[in-house]
Order: sequence, then C-alpha cells, then structure tokens
Amino acid sequence: MYEQPVTFDFDMTTGLCMQQPGMVRHLSYMKDMFCDEQAFAELVKENPLIYTFYDMAAPATDLDLAFGTSICQPGTVGQEYFMTKGHYHEVFGTAEVYYCLQGRGMMMMETLEGLWCVKELVPGRMVYVPGGWAHRTINTGTEPFITFYVFRGDAGHDYATIEDKSFRKMVIEEDGSPVVVDNPRWKQQEI
Amino acid sequence: MYEQPVTFDFDMTTGLCMQQPGMVRHLSYMKDMFCDEQAFAELVKENPLIYTFYDMAAPATDLDLAFGTSICQPGTVGQEYFMTKGHYHEVFGTAEVYYCLQGRGMMMMETLEGLWCVKELVPGRMVYVPGGWAHRTINTGTEPFITFYVFRGDAGHDYATIEDKSFRKMVIEEDGSPVVVDNPRWKQQEI
Repeated sequence: MYEQPVTFDFDMTTGLCMQQPGMVRHLSYMKDMFCDEQAFAELVKENPLIYTFYDMAAPATDLDLAFGTSICQPGTVGQEYFMTKGHYHEVFGTAEVYYCLQGRGMMMMETLEGLWCVKELVPGRMVYVPGGWAHRTINTGTEPFITFYVFRGDAGHDYATIEDKSFRKMVIEEDGSPVVVDNPRWKQQEI
Repeated sequence: MYEQPVTFDFDMTTGLCMQQPGMVRHLSYMKDMFCDEQAFAELVKENPLIYTFYDMAAPATDLDLAFGTSICQPGTVGQEYFMTKGHYHEVFGTAEVYYCLQGRGMMMMETLEGLWCVKELVPGRMVYVPGGWAHRTINTGTEPFITFYVFRGDAGHDYATIEDKSFRKMVIEEDGSPVVVDNPRWKQQEI
C-alpha cells in the first residue's frame, strides 16, 4: 500500500480521520490505571470514551513511519484527568514526535532509570519524546486534546510495562488547575 | 540535547518556530530550477523569499526523528508556482510524512525508475512520501503553504540529483488554476 504516495485527512477540529475508523478506548479498557478506584467504579457504569487513535497500517519497517492522531477527551476520574494508557516502544530507543493541533494537555514521560518529565502542550507546540521514554497524553482542558504523532514504522508498542508499573507521577485537578503529584499506583522498576 | 524531552512552538498561522530562526531560501538560491528563464531573470532582481524550513538539530541516528515546518510563499515565476528545491533522502529508502497546517499546495513526487505522482494538500491532509520518492512542495494558493514534516533522523538530503535532473512534471497556473504539465527542464535518469 505504501509503495505509492498516499494521503489521509485528519480533521483539524475533531482530529478524526475521514478515510478510516479510529481505535476507541472507553473507560472499561483502563481498569487499574486511574488512582481513584471508587470514582472509576462509579464512572465506568457510563463507560465514557476516553481516547481515540489510529493505526494507519504503514509498513512495520525501520525505513517507514507510523502516524496518526490521538484524541483524548476532557474529563476526570475523581481528580485525575482523562489520559491515554501510555507505552514504551518495543524497539526501545526509537523516538516519537507529537504536534498539538487542538486543546490543552500534557505529555507525561519517564524512563526505566527513574527520570521523569512532563511537558504542557497547546496548539502549535510539539514535543520530542526521545528513545527510551515511556509517554502518556493527558487532557487537562475542557475540549478534546488532539495531537498528530509520527514514529518509526517498526517501533511497536509495549503497553505491558505501564500496565504493570504505571507512571511515577500523575496529573490531578486541584482548584480547577492541573497539578503534578506522586502516583500512588507507581511500582518501582526492578532493574 | 535530545536525550531529554523537548518542546518547540511552530505557530499554526505563520508556520514559524518561536525558539529558533528558520533557513530561508530566496529566489537567487533557485537558479536553473524554474522553467521560464526570462521571468526568473526579471523577478530575481527583487529576489523574493520563496520558502523557509527548519533544521532542529535532532540527532542524525536511525532511532531519532527530524522535524519542522516548511513554509512556501505564494507566487509564480512566469506561470510556474513557487516551490521548494526538492530532494531525495541520502538514506534512500526512508519515508517522510507531511501534515498540511495552512494554505493550499501540492506535493510533487517521482522515483528514479520513472514513476511520478502529485498530491494536493489542504489543511488537515497529510501525505506519506514512501522511501525512494523525491519530493517537492509547491504553493498553488494565495497564502503561505505550511506543512509540518517528520523523517528519520539520519535520512539526510540529496539535493544534487534534482538540481541536475529536475522533476519530470511541473505545476503551472493556467486561467487561474494549477495544471500539471511536462517539465522541459527534466533530464532522463541514466540508470
């Protein structure tokens, strides 16, 4: 398919691709990822959409690039903002670029060695996620938080490490503003 | 620098990076690239800005990604629309992704084997340039044509092949609309 040039439309307001359905992640898919279990149990009855992203089927080679949009909905589970599951890349050292198209949010990042970093994103701002940094997008605003991402075609996703260990830090709403705090769910890496 | 996450702002209206100056290419830099030599000779006296792009100094490795915006100004040299020089990648099989943020234009692409392809870009549309395809952006609109691009950090640029051979096709304005025609400047590849 990608031996020939190809175009796709990702609407700049909704983030949605016009040629292909996205992968949707509702709250029930995020069990054990949010801190407040009681709030989770309550909200999961409605099971709201948390985020949408795309697998555009670019060839999984080191010469190709995977790309698409990530659309994280606004909202909180208790005090914790809606967010993506987050992942490392399977080809561990591969980087990723996210360009923010709409909304307001944060990229939460950390390494297995104990570094962490959070960057705020607004439309027009991009973040470079270097190789070896797990990353999760968090919607701290009131409208969908939309980014356009690109990574190496063969990078792959390791979700399991984050499912098991979570991130060291989390972003919660306090007095209407986002605050970065320690994540009680975080388990120390055994390395 | 890129061992840590980093952000940059690329204004969505102007395309300009707020942290670093761009690389500017005025018409005098584009000698022998436009078809109409007389129109070139006349316009080069004013030497207008043709395009701006960025080298954000991401590490030149196969794990990293190079990125930035390309901003092609509106205008023509004779009938031929303002455009970028165009290039192959030095690491020949590496792909590139362009996401259009503003304006209206075309991505002209071709291979050494004789395939060619042109795709129209409007805001929200992205084009996947597969490995082995030379590519050039062309502004067919009346405002700056702005794209955000990402490619592998070590891909590099081969401008010399296009400087020597040009592209098979070019885009000219006829009755106010863009038309793709044979490029008299094109020289057959010797392969």
